Amino acid sequence: MTTRHSGLTHLNDAGEARMVDISSKAPTRRKAVAKGHISMTKETLELVLSGRAAKGDVLATARIAAIMAAKKTSDIIPLCHPLSLSSVEVDLIPDGRGIEIRASVSTSGATGVEMEALTAVSVAALTLYDMCKAADRGMCISDIHLLHKSGGQSGEYNAV
Amino acid sequence: MTTRHSGLTHLNDAGEARMVDISSKAPTRRKAVAKGHISMTKETLELVLSGRAAKGDVLATARIAAIMAAKKTSDIIPLCHPLSLSSVEVDLIPDGRGIEIRASVSTSGATGVEMEALTAVSVAALTLYDMCKAADRGMCISDIHLLHKSGGQSGEYNAV
Amino acid sequence: MTTRHSGLTHLNDAGEARMVDISSKAPTRRKAVAKGHISMTKETLELVLSGRAAKGDVLATARIAAIMAAKKTSDIIPLCHPLSLSSVEVDLIPDGRGIEIRASVSTSGATGVEMEALTAVSVAALTLYDMCKAADRGMCISDIHLLHKSGGQSGEYNAV
Amino acid sequence: MTTRHSGLTHLNDAGEARMVDISSKAPTRRKAVAKGHISMTKETLELVLSGRAAKGDVLATARIAAIMAAKKTSDIIPLCHPLSLSSVEVDLIPDGRGIEIRASVSTSGATGVEMEALTAVSVAALTLYDMCKAADRGMCISDIHLLHKSGGQSGEYNAV
Amino acid sequence: MTTRHSGLTHLNDAGEARMVDISSKAPTRRKAVAKGHISMTKETLELVLSGRAAKGDVLATARIAAIMAAKKTSDIIPLCHPLSLSSVEVDLIPDGRGIEIRASVSTSGATGVEMEALTAVSVAALTLYDMCKAADRGMCISDIHLLHKSGGQSGEYNAV
Amino acid sequence: MTTRHSGLTHLNDAGEARMVDISSKAPTRRKAVAKGHISMTKETLELVLSGRAAKGDVLATARIAAIMAAKKTSDIIPLCHPLSLSSVEVDLIPDGRGIEIRASVSTSGATGVEMEALTAVSVAALTLYDMCKAADRGMCISDIHLLHKSGGQSGEYNAV
Repeated sequence: MTTRHSGLTHLNDAGEARMVDISSKAPTRRKAVAKGHISMTKETLELVLSGRAAKGDVLATARIAAIMAAKKTSDIIPLCHPLSLSSVEVDLIPDGRGIEIRASVSTSGATGVEMEALTAVSVAALTLYDMCKAADRGMCISDIHLLHKSGGQSGEYNAV
Repeated sequence: MTTRHSGLTHLNDAGEARMVDISSKAPTRRKAVAKGHISMTKETLELVLSGRAAKGDVLATARIAAIMAAKKTSDIIPLCHPLSLSSVEVDLIPDGRGIEIRASVSTSGATGVEMEALTAVSVAALTLYDMCKAADRGMCISDIHLLHKSGGQSGEYNAV
Repeated sequence: MTTRHSGLTHLNDAGEARMVDISSKAPTRRKAVAKGHISMTKETLELVLSGRAAKGDVLATARIAAIMAAKKTSDIIPLCHPLSLSSVEVDLIPDGRGIEIRASVSTSGATGVEMEALTAVSVAALTLYDMCKAADRGMCISDIHLLHKSGGQSGEYNAV
Repeated sequence: MTTRHSGLTHLNDAGEARMVDISSKAPTRRKAVAKGHISMTKETLELVLSGRAAKGDVLATARIAAIMAAKKTSDIIPLCHPLSLSSVEVDLIPDGRGIEIRASVSTSGATGVEMEALTAVSVAALTLYDMCKAADRGMCISDIHLLHKSGGQSGEYNAV
Repeated sequence: MTTRHSGLTHLNDAGEARMVDISSKAPTRRKAVAKGHISMTKETLELVLSGRAAKGDVLATARIAAIMAAKKTSDIIPLCHPLSLSSVEVDLIPDGRGIEIRASVSTSGATGVEMEALTAVSVAALTLYDMCKAADRGMCISDIHLLHKSGGQSGEYNAV
Repeated sequence: MTTRHSGLTHLNDAGEARMVDISSKAPTRRKAVAKGHISMTKETLELVLSGRAAKGDVLATARIAAIMAAKKTSDIIPLCHPLSLSSVEVDLIPDGRGIEIRASVSTSGATGVEMEALTAVSVAALTLYDMCKAADRGMCISDIHLLHKSGGQSGEYNAV
């Protein structure tokens, strides 16, 4: 998988996109955790949380959307391999400025699931935006990054 | 469309999720522009840009992924209405710290396209992450928000 | 749209499947309501309802799945026309024997939305089955039919 | 996989939806058979069967729709794991009151395929409804349940 | 919609892909007809046709796949606009060397449906290939082109 | 897998479509290579290639579309098994008359990937057609066939 564009394994020697060959990689248990944040006004956050108190459909909808998006990752991200996911969990944690999102994904497969975790976080944030946008147009989605990754040749990764 | 959870139109009076009724809204020309950013190391950015010089497949792949994701928005975001999009344009603008992403979407429809623009930006960022992750695990996606929205009853919106 | 297989408009004169031509039909406001039922043991129903009291994720998940399925109808049912839906609402009403499901869908389009309403009901039932199947394998989905339909040339329909 | 909402494994201890972890489950050969029924008037049934005599596109369309839906199950049912199916067979058996539907699905995987079989049955019924609805609005889909399940830890299940 | 890459309207002035703006185009009735061919041995063709005599599932499956693919065109072809199709018809005409495929698609929309017709033809051919490949690996799909197009500013087109 | 319609394994003894049972087939490394061609005028080809010189988005878009379509094969072709692909590569080779397309796909699975390779070729051709159709309506897609297949019981196949 060496390439003249060293480091960008999704390109071949001519710089053209490809789905990289993972057939020599052993299927192992792999896990990835990603996080992100959506900011909103205090008033909007209260609407979400009071909704939660009642029936919880705002947070529940975001959680379901995130889980379903994790399963659609290889359909959304062009060069991602299709994978059989073993588990997906999504946590939505209100803080003073909005809602923190964490997604944890695992697989027994030949490649990692960080894109699935990052996609789940992004779609949870977009769904929260969609459900609150009638009340608040200034929301901002930020800080989406990988927290943890384990399994596979490249070893364990933890964000500092 | 008044609701006890005032402001959260995606919930009915009982706080349950629904796809809100837009049948009384007139189809008009609507436009939305969203932006976001992905940070990466200087070395990673150089890899992307040299790829661009050669064949451009990194930026081209992110752009295509974003356009396709705009069309999939109502499949990804649970309560979004399906819409016939009139145009989608995606700009990827390298700066000193990474790549800024802007997406502009228009429709002639009964509801706005801000979710389509925000989804396009998010998926462009995720695709860039995917294509660069072998070189750089510390990339961060941030600052995803609505820049501009016009058309429809709620009038024009411009982020400050 | 006359055909030798009179009544089966999805077949042409040779008995072959086609997507019937609706280009001569005027776009009007159309609505359909469908219902169905899933039976379960009293113990299972209590698990669902106590979950509802707490966070509501069982019923919320079924409701979201139903709304998303309504939007996917033309992707699931081979000869359905793609339609821009104006609204989707799903009600889940526990009764003594399980849960009754009602879905109401509207559009401003050239063909009806009864398949969208029936698909929403079916997928809500399947999702409830999925979420409860670890507790109860004997659940049964039944009584899925059209309650009401209005708009379009064929006039209003109400189930007896 | 124990949970305070005992029996509802798709919820975590807080009652929130998740895709349960199957990574500790061994991949084994698993099979599920589901059935269901759609009732219709004698006249409608004759239209379907005469179509069958000619070119068979009504029943063939329902069968194809069911097989494709089995493959889409994890895209339709929010918490279903994506699975590589080994086989799908669908039988459509006219009786005096309408058409009985049976679907049989197998996999070599870490979780069962009852949702795939039930989804196939539901979509076959919905497709028959769609193709006959111009002739008959009173059709009713009922009796969708699991007939048989084998493979995996929970052992064999057969409906009484 | 003028561009320095004159003629390639899917590229902007910088040569970057975009979904072109059709918001200034009036929705009119548009139609496209495409054709193609799959060659196979006489023995394979006989298997298909005898299947047709019996239950017709080979040709019926190809026809259904083509109709469903027409609806998925904007999901498969990156820069295609999503469209509400008014009708899709697919003809499969056995000749001495294999099977000729014709697809006819119409819409009332702001852009043409030639890609929908060409996609339907291609997927019918691929489905026939799939269903016959156990008997014949030397099949060849060819001659896929636009026969006719009407509606819209560019006027009527008929292949010579 | 013997059947009275010998050779057409996608049909059961009654001539009805099914997804054939591959559960007794061992997962092995499998590969398939397919090719095809799209003809266009010299002027159109020059537009594509000058676009390539600049930013490459025409060929890059076709390549991405082909890779994504390979992953969607089991969603497009009714009786194809869902498969976890190990790699997809697409080559676009301009010649005097247009562009030759080659796609190479591999998997570690229980069935072959020739449909994935053929689907990738077809969708690359359709995407090129879409991007060039404003300049050239007479393009023709032809010569789509299997070049090579290895892995599995049926042994290696090479087109003559």
